[in-house]
Amino acid sequence: MLDSLTTAAPDAARLLFRAGLRRPTAGLSAGFQQANLVCVPRQHAFDFLLFTARNPQPCPVVDVVETGGWTPEVAPGADLRTDLPGYRIWRGGNVEAEVSDVRAVWRTDLVSFLLGCSFTFEHALMIAGIRLRHVEQGRNVAMFDTSTPCRSAGIFSGNLVVSMRPILIGQLDRVRAICAAMPWAHGAPVHVGDPSELGISDLQTPDYGDPIEIQPGEVPVFWACGVTTQNVLRHSQLSFAITHAPGFMFVTDKPAMSA
Amino acid sequence: MLDSLTTAAPDAARLLFRAGLRRPTAGLSAGFQQANLVCVPRQHAFDFLLFTARNPQPCPVVDVVETGGWTPEVAPGADLRTDLPGYRIWRGGNVEAEVSDVRAVWRTDLVSFLLGCSFTFEHALMIAGIRLRHVEQGRNVAMFDTSTPCRSAGIFSGNLVVSMRPILIGQLDRVRAICAAMPWAHGAPVHVGDPSELGISDLQTPDYGDPIEIQPGEVPVFWACGVTTQNVLRHSQLSFAITHAPGFMFVTDKPAMSA
Repeated sequence: MLDSLTTAAPDAARLLFRAGLRRPTAGLSAGFQQANLVCVPRQHAFDFLLFTARNPQPCPVVDVVETGGWTPEVAPGADLRTDLPGYRIWRGGNVEAEVSDVRAVWRTDLVSFLLGCSFTFEHALMIAGIRLRHVEQGRNVAMFDTSTPCRSAGIFSGNLVVSMRPILIGQLDRVRAICAAMPWAHGAPVHVGDPSELGISDLQTPDYGDPIEIQPGEVPVFWACGVTTQNVLRHSQLSFAITHAPGFMFVTDKPAMSA
Repeated sequence: MLDSLTTAAPDAARLLFRAGLRRPTAGLSAGFQQANLVCVPRQHAFDFLLFTARNPQPCPVVDVVETGGWTPEVAPGADLRTDLPGYRIWRGGNVEAEVSDVRAVWRTDLVSFLLGCSFTFEHALMIAGIRLRHVEQGRNVAMFDTSTPCRSAGIFSGNLVVSMRPILIGQLDRVRAICAAMPWAHGAPVHVGDPSELGISDLQTPDYGDPIEIQPGEVPVFWACGVTTQNVLRHSQLSFAITHAPGFMFVTDKPAMSA
């Protein structure tokens, strides 16, 4: 199953999820962009869109579906209410439930945002010969809360969350160049080297995901992370929202390397 | 006066406009970004912000001032209601008046958008040795309605407006590279060469601005233009809006070459 899904067309993968398949989407439909999903009530949509505009590195907008709609331009025929393998339902800034179909709680006033995902640049890095140990080991990437505030917008505020990957010093320039050319997938790293500059005290105890060791010749490299958004929903105590479940992303028809 | 304003600090230029000076801002405060101003009621702010996100070339967002505010981050101490040399007041999609101060019609529900301006990339091109004949001749740039629809968002839709500058064929690559690196000032040209591909029938009869001839060795180069926004306000018959008057831009504290 894993092998066949690696090369599955995005629409085929979405249909399997619609039919009830539940699994993380890392490595799925290789070569196509995956996206974070955030659905907020129309009343808060301006503030949220402004938040993404002010924080494009953690929140690169891939597509926006206007009020009440569920089919994005980046995936004709898709249904955002059923075509992800997992969702979170949020009330008052807390996760109330994790489900595989949100039609029962769907509201006609929801605006849906698709935001770029690190799987997209990881794919590009691996094609370029950059080894990513957490992928090779089949583990989740290490993610950390930082002390760096995002630029706030209306009701939305909170600190940046970053992902960290050990990179060989000699490959840093290549990594930077590849990622900088992909602003739709978090862009260039936000920091290289010293975790304390981001307010991170211990690299071995990530706030989300799995720890990973820094080996000789490597440096820790930090990227803005899509989890920032869920941190901000929590911090803003938003009355209602729907998001993807972490790692259970929306698979788009958009090639990974295209803006 | 013109000479002293060329090198005036942005805040000094804004204070002169606040005091009542009326003149176009082309060539003013050289080296600093100028911006289009669009203020729309909060009720339409999500649709307008989404329109800018979907059409970043004509509508690159430089700053957004939230509901009721008038001081942008890109110009501390400024007052958007008084610090431009000229404004347009729009009702029902039509220009009702042109004034030099909008405090009398200001509304507490207005959200203000500052959008990038072609003066910024023209400055960069001239520094790089690209001659711009309309500037040398002290004329307005030639602008054209096109048959290319913008991506619509909520109530906002309309066709792209472009500006045209004759460029020497041997300088095309340099022009493209410089402009592509300035997405906050309309980015790379949208078309080079054939005006009919944009639905433009006669280069000598621009829809806005002054005509300019194409000389031997030159080709017409077309950029997305900030006038698109005013075209869209008209087409959308928006109940109320405030914009800058064409050519009477807002001068920011932001260096021309910085994102």
